[in-house]
Amino acid sequence: MRRLGQILDQIHDRIHEEADWGLPAQYIPELASVDREQFAISAVTPDGQCHSAGLAQRPFSIQSISKVFALTATLGRIGDALWTRVGREPTKVAFDSIMLLETDHGRPSNPFVNAGAIVTTDALLAGREPRQALAEILGLVRTMAGTDDIYINDRVAQSEKRTAERNKALAHYLASHGNLVNDPDLTLGTYFHQCAIEMTTEQLAMSGRVLADLKCAPPTISRAHARRTNALMLTCGHYDASGEFAFKVGLPGKSGVGGGILLIAPRKASIGIWSPGLNGYGNSEAGTRAAAMLADMTGWSVF
Amino acid sequence: MRRLGQILDQIHDRIHEEADWGLPAQYIPELASVDREQFAISAVTPDGQCHSAGLAQRPFSIQSISKVFALTATLGRIGDALWTRVGREPTKVAFDSIMLLETDHGRPSNPFVNAGAIVTTDALLAGREPRQALAEILGLVRTMAGTDDIYINDRVAQSEKRTAERNKALAHYLASHGNLVNDPDLTLGTYFHQCAIEMTTEQLAMSGRVLADLKCAPPTISRAHARRTNALMLTCGHYDASGEFAFKVGLPGKSGVGGGILLIAPRKASIGIWSPGLNGYGNSEAGTRAAAMLADMTGWSVF
Amino acid sequence: MRRLGQILDQIHDRIHEEADWGLPAQYIPELASVDREQFAISAVTPDGQCHSAGLAQRPFSIQSISKVFALTATLGRIGDALWTRVGREPTKVAFDSIMLLETDHGRPSNPFVNAGAIVTTDALLAGREPRQALAEILGLVRTMAGTDDIYINDRVAQSEKRTAERNKALAHYLASHGNLVNDPDLTLGTYFHQCAIEMTTEQLAMSGRVLADLKCAPPTISRAHARRTNALMLTCGHYDASGEFAFKVGLPGKSGVGGGILLIAPRKASIGIWSPGLNGYGNSEAGTRAAAMLADMTGWSVF
Amino acid sequence: MRRLGQILDQIHDRIHEEADWGLPAQYIPELASVDREQFAISAVTPDGQCHSAGLAQRPFSIQSISKVFALTATLGRIGDALWTRVGREPTKVAFDSIMLLETDHGRPSNPFVNAGAIVTTDALLAGREPRQALAEILGLVRTMAGTDDIYINDRVAQSEKRTAERNKALAHYLASHGNLVNDPDLTLGTYFHQCAIEMTTEQLAMSGRVLADLKCAPPTISRAHARRTNALMLTCGHYDASGEFAFKVGLPGKSGVGGGILLIAPRKASIGIWSPGLNGYGNSEAGTRAAAMLADMTGWSVF
Repeated sequence: MRRLGQILDQIHDRIHEEADWGLPAQYIPELASVDREQFAISAVTPDGQCHSAGLAQRPFSIQSISKVFALTATLGRIGDALWTRVGREPTKVAFDSIMLLETDHGRPSNPFVNAGAIVTTDALLAGREPRQALAEILGLVRTMAGTDDIYINDRVAQSEKRTAERNKALAHYLASHGNLVNDPDLTLGTYFHQCAIEMTTEQLAMSGRVLADLKCAPPTISRAHARRTNALMLTCGHYDASGEFAFKVGLPGKSGVGGGILLIAPRKASIGIWSPGLNGYGNSEAGTRAAAMLADMTGWSVF
Repeated sequence: MRRLGQILDQIHDRIHEEADWGLPAQYIPELASVDREQFAISAVTPDGQCHSAGLAQRPFSIQSISKVFALTATLGRIGDALWTRVGREPTKVAFDSIMLLETDHGRPSNPFVNAGAIVTTDALLAGREPRQALAEILGLVRTMAGTDDIYINDRVAQSEKRTAERNKALAHYLASHGNLVNDPDLTLGTYFHQCAIEMTTEQLAMSGRVLADLKCAPPTISRAHARRTNALMLTCGHYDASGEFAFKVGLPGKSGVGGGILLIAPRKASIGIWSPGLNGYGNSEAGTRAAAMLADMTGWSVF
Repeated sequence: MRRLGQILDQIHDRIHEEADWGLPAQYIPELASVDREQFAISAVTPDGQCHSAGLAQRPFSIQSISKVFALTATLGRIGDALWTRVGREPTKVAFDSIMLLETDHGRPSNPFVNAGAIVTTDALLAGREPRQALAEILGLVRTMAGTDDIYINDRVAQSEKRTAERNKALAHYLASHGNLVNDPDLTLGTYFHQCAIEMTTEQLAMSGRVLADLKCAPPTISRAHARRTNALMLTCGHYDASGEFAFKVGLPGKSGVGGGILLIAPRKASIGIWSPGLNGYGNSEAGTRAAAMLADMTGWSVF
Repeated sequence: MRRLGQILDQIHDRIHEEADWGLPAQYIPELASVDREQFAISAVTPDGQCHSAGLAQRPFSIQSISKVFALTATLGRIGDALWTRVGREPTKVAFDSIMLLETDHGRPSNPFVNAGAIVTTDALLAGREPRQALAEILGLVRTMAGTDDIYINDRVAQSEKRTAERNKALAHYLASHGNLVNDPDLTLGTYFHQCAIEMTTEQLAMSGRVLADLKCAPPTISRAHARRTNALMLTCGHYDASGEFAFKVGLPGKSGVGGGILLIAPRKASIGIWSPGLNGYGNSEAGTRAAAMLADMTGWSVF
């Protein structure tokens, strides 16, 4: 499909022309020093072809995009039992907010805010060794992406472990409401490592094939499961800018503070985008704009 | 399309078998006394055919579904200028909540919570007579539905006017932040009347054709406008149960406390559902379940 | 007591030297245009002598100080039944905040925030004509102050009535929770008029004699009643700066946006202070500093 | 003073007659198992005499009453610099609430809610060894009480350390806003040990002499410092029931979840009360009633 390749090239060029890059995440030392003028976009079509533009083979830290994979692994393991511990509603507060946990008695609003992701990982861990849960998540990511060349960057994980007081506060607060079953430090250690998975946009695009219901996807999760994950990504995937993303892009997406975005165009394509500078909501500045351009140029909006 | 008719009949039968009806809205006297064991569903397909089951020709009070039409009229009149006064984010608070208005300095989160709808109607009114704005909304509804047989029930409007202290509080609070340009009583009077529009599920289904991008739709609003309205319906259309609705149904929808739901399956169908009993979020109890059944049986989920 | 007169003179001089006047209340047109470089202080001692400095015979709008008198009148009429409708706790939110009403289901935190004062006045009104309730409050003020030369400024009341959208929002919100027994407009009309009572600092100081338990006080309310009113003034009398006022002044006090402060030094003196410019909390800027100076120079802190 | 002794005996008898004991703190295992039908009250008069009734020589865990001593020690060391990190306003939320920390960007409302006390202890610790800060607090308590027979119960401290996830969440949240200068674990370790100080009501009453400005008090802190501490105790000393306590008792007081209350009647007496069962606000059920009886019977209210 020649046209898709051209579209990605045009997006790549416009992003570099506009030169509005945002600021890399400052609170994780290993990420703060990244050169922000970087961009990559990859899209896989139903036939399995992957089109790319920019630095599509440069691995980056997927951070919160890992919440999609952890959720998938957890639902695969315990099914709907997860929903007794986490909600499915978008909120209008920041990704690391703790306020709603108090009014909601320790039950996070959804699995894509930090508190909800910590509970999800805790449910996956379930008394096992962190490395077992991490092997399960990483194995799933590799299967979904169709490659074993995906790793956890331990330095990033350690870097976050030293600094992430906010996540520690969330974990202990959840524990105070009995909504963690493991030692908070073990759950957080697992969570920080899952966030430190590194992927390229090509790998990210490949990993979303089953969510996009592409013919080329490996048989990992059921259609119903994929649909529900997409629904959560659309309503909650960009934190307190999720409504805006749905309004402007019209596709399920999940962002990470590493600057990545996994974007799903059901039955059309699975897309990976990366640019490390962030906007005020913690989502990739250039990546968000690229997603809107792609939706405009392809008409892939689900609406 | 024989199959769709059968599906609607099956849904109708299951709803009556399950006999789980919820409770009609108690705070509007005219609505409180409605018999709750009523149900209707209608779906229009791209070819313009309308399939129905149940009481599809019984008019009901569309209430908050009118917010979709008022938004459409307002965006048609002032365009994106509306967004300086209203946001586009889902919230996790009830439809008539006033809390977030305080932290957000009088700017409602989205046009589908009450405060946001009052601002939208205020922007449409813009110094004119209430009857002019109402004529504009009603005219739009009739055009979209392709029939002139749609009216405002003045008794319901008066009934609400007498009782709706919460909406009065919202209007005066908005005014205190300078986010109403008309006298609060005029804006509220217009709002209460727009909510008192009565339609059948057939008419409701017909009115959504343009949002669903059906071939049979009258040319009223642009595709971009329709997509954005659908995005808002999906993320915010069921108040603090919007995430849940997206998760279980996977289609843009807008509910009203009269028990109606307008449901959009892009390029597949436009659907009207009605059952007057409500669940705890103020959405039709049986109607919400019917929407989930329909999505399951047709595979129309956008995800 | 010569020394007290000298202290008041010194305070008066320092206030004028410091020339830090704040800004008169902007939201009530009649008050916004007042010259802010004005100051008065009066103190009545147990023997009935009244010492003053500055413009002690200039009447000003007592505004929220009227909440003390309305509370006194209401407790006199219905006693502790009031506390089923209003709490007795300080809050950390502004005087006109509406947020806590939502979480507290329409029960104001205390009788000195606006919502609590509106409920208090509503309880006093109790189905009667507004002029009856107003006559009762005004009569009480005159008795407590020992003079009939105290009036309501109708122009100020009308001015506020036209502009006070926030108070209207509060009243309708209270009504939506069933915590108003009269028509919101009648209760608000009474409230706006009670706030428009005008007094001089001399009259204000005289009116507080019974609260201060001075020998010269007319027998109006019981000692227990006075003590509890003082307790409320100390914990809640300066809104979200009440803790600060207790910390720096150490005396029960009630401020009004007209720039007045009623200050009670139990068994020592009753004090009236006025300077129309306000600080960021809606309390008199110079008046608050004068209160702190007086407490420092006299050692009258209750602590 | 014979009469005071009789009053305390009467209070003791009435408390045992009423037999309304509340429930001991459940979240600290070492405290949960305490027999709740215990009561003690002691009062020291200006001449240094200590009158008691009940189990006045039984040591109990002072818990949050230690916040008064830690505040005193910290103000003695760094003075008003503390107030850049902690506010002085009462709140209407529970003692262990984390919500307001988010809206206030990590600055606790006052030094008597848990978050504020943790910051206070952190400021006292200031890079030193926990045992140095603890020696300072314990030394101050012993000096104020005039006895060396006061110790920290290490078992209680360890018991709390294992369970207090809520306090850990507060500490890490404060750290995430840069409002802790020490490692959160060190600050918390110090805090848990300070809370585990054990005193009898006799010792507690003796320790409050300087706050009550009694002639018999050892010269430890200035009158101004004592007054301000008393003001904070009155407005914030009983958490979200502080207004109620001021209304009913009218004296500065600080409660602890061990069931103790330190009560200050300026220039009249310093009082220690203990009964381990708590009310819904985390304050001693019988102790709070005893404080109200004492104020009624003595007329010691500051108001």
